[in-house]
Amino acid sequence: MRIDQLLVATVLTVMLTGCAAPRATGDLGVVVERASGSLTLVETTNQTLLQRIEGLGDLSHASVVYSRDERFAYVFGRDGGLTKVDMLSGRIAGRTIQSGNSIGGAISQDGSLVAVSNYEPGGVKVFDADTLELVVDIPATYGEEGQLSKVVGLVDAPGQRFVFSLFEAGEIWVADLSQPDKPQITRFKDIGREPYDALVTPDGRYYIAGLFGEDGLAMLDLWHPEQGVRRILDHYGRGEQKLPVYKMPHLEGWAIAGDYAFVPAVGRHEVLIVDVGTWQEVDRIEVHGQPVFVMGRPDGREVWVNYAFPDNDTVQIIDTASFRIAETLKPGKGVLHMEFTPRGEHLWMSVRDEDVVRVYDTRTRQEIATLPAEKPSGIFFTARAHRIGL
Amino acid sequence: MRIDQLLVATVLTVMLTGCAAPRATGDLGVVVERASGSLTLVETTNQTLLQRIEGLGDLSHASVVYSRDERFAYVFGRDGGLTKVDMLSGRIAGRTIQSGNSIGGAISQDGSLVAVSNYEPGGVKVFDADTLELVVDIPATYGEEGQLSKVVGLVDAPGQRFVFSLFEAGEIWVADLSQPDKPQITRFKDIGREPYDALVTPDGRYYIAGLFGEDGLAMLDLWHPEQGVRRILDHYGRGEQKLPVYKMPHLEGWAIAGDYAFVPAVGRHEVLIVDVGTWQEVDRIEVHGQPVFVMGRPDGREVWVNYAFPDNDTVQIIDTASFRIAETLKPGKGVLHMEFTPRGEHLWMSVRDEDVVRVYDTRTRQEIATLPAEKPSGIFFTARAHRIGL
Repeated sequence: MRIDQLLVATVLTVMLTGCAAPRATGDLGVVVERASGSLTLVETTNQTLLQRIEGLGDLSHASVVYSRDERFAYVFGRDGGLTKVDMLSGRIAGRTIQSGNSIGGAISQDGSLVAVSNYEPGGVKVFDADTLELVVDIPATYGEEGQLSKVVGLVDAPGQRFVFSLFEAGEIWVADLSQPDKPQITRFKDIGREPYDALVTPDGRYYIAGLFGEDGLAMLDLWHPEQGVRRILDHYGRGEQKLPVYKMPHLEGWAIAGDYAFVPAVGRHEVLIVDVGTWQEVDRIEVHGQPVFVMGRPDGREVWVNYAFPDNDTVQIIDTASFRIAETLKPGKGVLHMEFTPRGEHLWMSVRDEDVVRVYDTRTRQEIATLPAEKPSGIFFTARAHRIGL
Repeated sequence: MRIDQLLVATVLTVMLTGCAAPRATGDLGVVVERASGSLTLVETTNQTLLQRIEGLGDLSHASVVYSRDERFAYVFGRDGGLTKVDMLSGRIAGRTIQSGNSIGGAISQDGSLVAVSNYEPGGVKVFDADTLELVVDIPATYGEEGQLSKVVGLVDAPGQRFVFSLFEAGEIWVADLSQPDKPQITRFKDIGREPYDALVTPDGRYYIAGLFGEDGLAMLDLWHPEQGVRRILDHYGRGEQKLPVYKMPHLEGWAIAGDYAFVPAVGRHEVLIVDVGTWQEVDRIEVHGQPVFVMGRPDGREVWVNYAFPDNDTVQIIDTASFRIAETLKPGKGVLHMEFTPRGEHLWMSVRDEDVVRVYDTRTRQEIATLPAEKPSGIFFTARAHRIGL
C-alpha cells in the first residue's frame, strides 16, 4: 500500500470508527432482552433502536443503574455478572462475575461506587464505578454461627449510603460509605420475617421492605434512624390473599403521587391507596388482575398498572385525582415492564410474547411507535442517573 | 501541497477537531458570566471548567433550559437574544434576537418547542427547538384597545402546555401547544394586580404567581383549571414589609420539601413555612437577611438560602425537619445563585464579587473546589432537562 493509500485508509477509518458523530446521552436507554442475554440501546427523542449489545449473561430479573454523566450503564445479571456498558460506543467497557447469584444493585449518590446485593454468597459487594475493582465486601452475617443471609432490596440513599435487607436474618442494614475504607454499618434487627424486596421513597427518606414471612411492611425513616424500624400496613401481604399469588409484586413499582402511594396488593385484584403522611390505607381500587408494577407518571396525575399471568396482556391507567380507572389497554401478552420518559410525555412498554416495545403518547394514550425486541423485559432510561433510589 | 501532505493535514484536522474525545452530557452545566456576556461550560464529576463561550449579548437576569437529550442549552438574554449552545462542541449552534427585551423562557414537555416571555413587545414567542424558527407568536393583548402586556413567570407544564402571567393585565394564560398550528389559549382574568414572577410546583400541578401590586399570591391548580385562580397567603407581599425591599425574591427559588414549601418573605428577614396541603402558613424562621433564593436540596432534608444586599455575603442552611438554622456560611460578597447536583451531594454557588464559583460537599458542608469565573451569576446543570417546570 502506498503512503497516500494508507492515508486515505486512515482518514476513512478515523471518519468511520474513531469519529462517530458526537451524541448526547440524556435521551438514551436500554431494553433488556432476557432470553438472549442482550440489551438493545434506544433513544427516546425519535423513538428508535440504535444498537444491540450481546454477551451479558443471564439477564432474567436484570436491573440497570447509570453513571452520573449518563455515559455508562451498570447491568446487574441474575448470574452474579456486573457489566459496564458504554452508551456512546455501544460496547462492553468492563465485566466481572462478582458472585454466584445476585438480585440487583445501586449506585452511590456521588457515582463513585456501585453496590450489588447477592444471594450466594449472601452479602453486598461494592465496586469502584470506574474500574469495577472490589472496594468493600459486606458479608450478611447473622446469628451465633455467623451464617450468611441472602440480601434483597438494595437501594442508595443520600449521604453516600446504601440500605438493604437480609432475607433469612430479618434485618435491615444501613451502610455509610462516605469513607469507603471505614464503612459504618448500622443493623436493625427483628424487623419482620423474610423481607423479600424494598423501596426507598423518591426523596430518599423512607425505606420500606415487604415481608414474605408475615403480613405488614417494615419502614425505616432514614431522617430518624434512632426511632428504629416500625410496622406499617399491618394487613398487607400474603395473609390477605384470596387468590393464588402468581407473582409477588415489585415494591419498586410503588407510585407516589402527591399525598398518596399507590401500592400493588398481594394476591388480590386491587391497588391500595395509602396516605404517605400517616402510612394508613385510605382506599382500594378494583383492577383487572394481580398488579405487578404500579408506575406513576412523573407529574403524578396518572398511574399505569400491569398484571401477573394470566392477565399480563392488560395495562390499566388510574386517575390519581378521582381514584378511578381512566383507560384499559390491551397491548398484547406478556407486558413485563414500563418506563416513562423523564417528563412523562411518553411511556415505553415491553410486550414479551409479541417481541415488541410499544411507545405511547400519555396525553392521547395512542401508540406512536412499535419497536422490535427479543423477549423484552426491563426498560431503563439514562435519566435515572439523576434520581435518588433508582 | 502534495496529495500526501494534504491527506496528512486532513488526518490531523479530523483528529484534532472533528474527533474530540466522545463525552456524555449528564454531568455538564453552564455558569452565566453577566458582565462579559459569556458562559463557562463546566462538568460536575471532577468539578472542572471546560471552556468559555462568548458572544451571548446581555446576560443580566439570564436563564437557561436544556434539550431533552442534554446536548443543547437555550439561553434567554435580557436583550431578547435566544442563543442555542452546543454543550458537546462548546459552540453557538444558533442565535436570534427575538424581541427587544425578554425575561425568561421554557422548553415544552417533549422538547420540540422553546418559548420566550417578552416585555417588549409584550407576549410569548415560541420557536422550533431544532431550527429556532418562529412557530407561534402569542401577543399578550388585553383591554378594549388591545394593549400589549409584559409577560412574566413563563413555565412549562405537562400536556405540552406553557403557563405565564401578564403584568399590566393581571391575567394568567395557559397555552396548550399540543397542536402548534392551533394553539389553545385559556385566559384567567382578574387574578390580582401586577403579577411579577411565578413558579410551578415540581409535579407541574400548581402554578403560583407573586403580585407586585397587592398582597397575596395567585394560584391555579392545573389539574382543575375549571376551579379558576384562587388567592393564597393573603398577607404575603410588599404589604408586610417592615424594611425597604432591596430585591423582590425569586419565586422559582421556593423549596418544596415533603409537606412544606419554604418561601422567601418579601422585605423581611424571614423564611415562611407553608403547608402545601392547605397552602396556609404554619411557621416562620428568622434568618440573616432578606432571602432571595430558598433552594431545596434534592432530598428535601435542607434548604440553602442566599440574601439580598447588604447581606449577600452570607448563605444559611435550614434543617427542614427541625425548622432551625443548621449552619451559616460566609462565602464572600455577592452570592447570586446556587445549584445542587441532581442527587444533592454537592452545591455550586456563584460569588460574584470574588469572581469565583464555590463547590460544597453538602454532607460535610466543606468547600471542595473553587473555580474562577468572571462575575458569575446563574448556574444551570443539564439535569434540568429531565424536570418539569425548570
